[in-house]
Amino acid sequence: MGDRVGHEALGSFVTQIFAKLGVPEEHARTTAEVLISANLRGIDSHGVARTRRYVQGLRDGVMVAEAEIRVLQETSVTALLDGGAGLGQVVGDQAMRLAMEKARESGVGLVSVRNSNHYGIAGYYSMMALEEDLMGISMTNAAPLVVPTFGKDAVLGTNPMSIAVPTGKERPFVLDMATSVVTRGKLEEYERHGEPLLEGWATDSKGVPSPDASEVLHNMKERLGGGILPLGGAGEQLSGHKGYGLALLVDILCGVLPGAGYATGVYPTDKSGRPLPADIGHFFGALRVDSFRPLAEFKGSMDDIVRALRNSAKAEGQERIFIHGEKEFETAEKRMRIGIPLHPKVASDLRSLGEELRVPCPF
Amino acid sequence: MGDRVGHEALGSFVTQIFAKLGVPEEHARTTAEVLISANLRGIDSHGVARTRRYVQGLRDGVMVAEAEIRVLQETSVTALLDGGAGLGQVVGDQAMRLAMEKARESGVGLVSVRNSNHYGIAGYYSMMALEEDLMGISMTNAAPLVVPTFGKDAVLGTNPMSIAVPTGKERPFVLDMATSVVTRGKLEEYERHGEPLLEGWATDSKGVPSPDASEVLHNMKERLGGGILPLGGAGEQLSGHKGYGLALLVDILCGVLPGAGYATGVYPTDKSGRPLPADIGHFFGALRVDSFRPLAEFKGSMDDIVRALRNSAKAEGQERIFIHGEKEFETAEKRMRIGIPLHPKVASDLRSLGEELRVPCPF
Repeated sequence: MGDRVGHEALGSFVTQIFAKLGVPEEHARTTAEVLISANLRGIDSHGVARTRRYVQGLRDGVMVAEAEIRVLQETSVTALLDGGAGLGQVVGDQAMRLAMEKARESGVGLVSVRNSNHYGIAGYYSMMALEEDLMGISMTNAAPLVVPTFGKDAVLGTNPMSIAVPTGKERPFVLDMATSVVTRGKLEEYERHGEPLLEGWATDSKGVPSPDASEVLHNMKERLGGGILPLGGAGEQLSGHKGYGLALLVDILCGVLPGAGYATGVYPTDKSGRPLPADIGHFFGALRVDSFRPLAEFKGSMDDIVRALRNSAKAEGQERIFIHGEKEFETAEKRMRIGIPLHPKVASDLRSLGEELRVPCPF
Repeated sequence: MGDRVGHEALGSFVTQIFAKLGVPEEHARTTAEVLISANLRGIDSHGVARTRRYVQGLRDGVMVAEAEIRVLQETSVTALLDGGAGLGQVVGDQAMRLAMEKARESGVGLVSVRNSNHYGIAGYYSMMALEEDLMGISMTNAAPLVVPTFGKDAVLGTNPMSIAVPTGKERPFVLDMATSVVTRGKLEEYERHGEPLLEGWATDSKGVPSPDASEVLHNMKERLGGGILPLGGAGEQLSGHKGYGLALLVDILCGVLPGAGYATGVYPTDKSGRPLPADIGHFFGALRVDSFRPLAEFKGSMDDIVRALRNSAKAEGQERIFIHGEKEFETAEKRMRIGIPLHPKVASDLRSLGEELRVPCPF
């Protein structure tokens, strides 16, 4: 797997990279923290491997280092933000804090965001709510890579949604899922290993399921047709239309509702094909559990349902039933202890970035 | 298919059935309307075919004809209701109206409900919000028929969720989906036709995918193990853990949050095995779109995204890309015109009910 790096050293390095590009220190730290949290939780596709893309975005000016994030409209329970084309992590952190503030005071807070960028893992923001025993919601739209049911072309993003729910003694419930059957990262992993894709994962340029990872990824990049299938796979037999519906719902809440880009309108380009600001949209929510039920009672029942599932009988050949977020919490505990493994390509790319920007690399 | 009956005559008949059992006229009408709306939309498993079960519930006293529905806790944006073990349709209608009232006044309304019963199709309630140009949310938990990923026993319900979003000139977006890969109704349909179940739909008593509809249904009824798989199917390869997570989320919002039954705790029985009130829970939400963006602009973008999807290129061999709710709207238009088709068994059962309760049957 290559190097293992302590999360603090890695976080500090990435913070300095962003700071060198004009991102205010505090915002650089937030951005690094979201990336590192993905690595800690084992979601390496959304971790520091993304640093180069953000650096490029800042250099190209499609991401703004000192973004002005503005509240365009606000009530005691809702707000619409303009992210000023800032780093998605900075925008997301601020928007989620606002949702939590509203929830603390009014029971519920819903914040939708336009004019933002890739914000990393959805689960980072929903989990912020857990610190205050709130339920947290986080969603984002994304580059169009997913084909609708019966469609040939990718029109929707992998559009993830995350919901985090506080518990008592058990670990929190943290659902954090792309609404597609798999992510692009998974296809890339299969390409690297030369393995055939599973039926129901992705389609070729005619819109027909294909096992060929390289071809699918090439077609997606060049927009030649095909793409990733929604949760439930091709057609309606395994309910692919449900995954398609969830992806569309996320685009409605993140794109249509705040007036951000949606469908193929995210990551627009100018007439000469050069990228414009991505106009990604997000949706955040926070909810006070005690608006409905005393917190301690609620937490007791959450512990109970978690145990009921975990302790229920296993299917033949299976040893464990997981609760959502459990694997990631375990990975994070391990990686906090023994460091974050970096793929050699990622490590070498970060080293070059350090050299380019004169930031000492800790590995 | 058997008889076709006009929706008004059928609705009036079912209303009178419930009225004969002591359900107040207005509540009987609401219950019938929700059932008829399912038939109109082509979801016959949740339509008047359920009448007998509700009649039985009312006779057994596990459903209360003149239920007292109480607000236990309330803020300007949230409420917790006790459904008084009333008919789920009556409770659901009242709870959704309360959510809409709060949304009208405060932008958002979230209402969770304990001590209710089967409420029919989730989409009926989310669509109520459309009449006032609100977004509507509706979810319910249900009898445990769904196995968690890697589990053998059914611990969760098919736990449907529905979200309805207003549009301008296009038909509204109405996602209304079980979080399981299929419903029990689908398995029953395959059993009737003697067809093998698809891989990824259901498991046998060992928790292994099975094509045998009769066996699966028998095991589910006798609680011998196995059940319906979550959206995404068995294991994690096609992301069955995501469907499992959505089912659990619905149980958290509908069961744990309001303090209703959850997991295997819905439809409890007493020591001698006799049914107690089901203690089903629901969650409803309504959201004012103009808290975020002027309604007309929002509707314009909704029309635009609907058209973008519908008009995008089709996969090889496909002719049409659907928007969620579209098929059901078309079926409803047709059935409003030519009547609701009744399966001979359902027609004969309703006729007997009419005789038992001395309500003239219109077919």
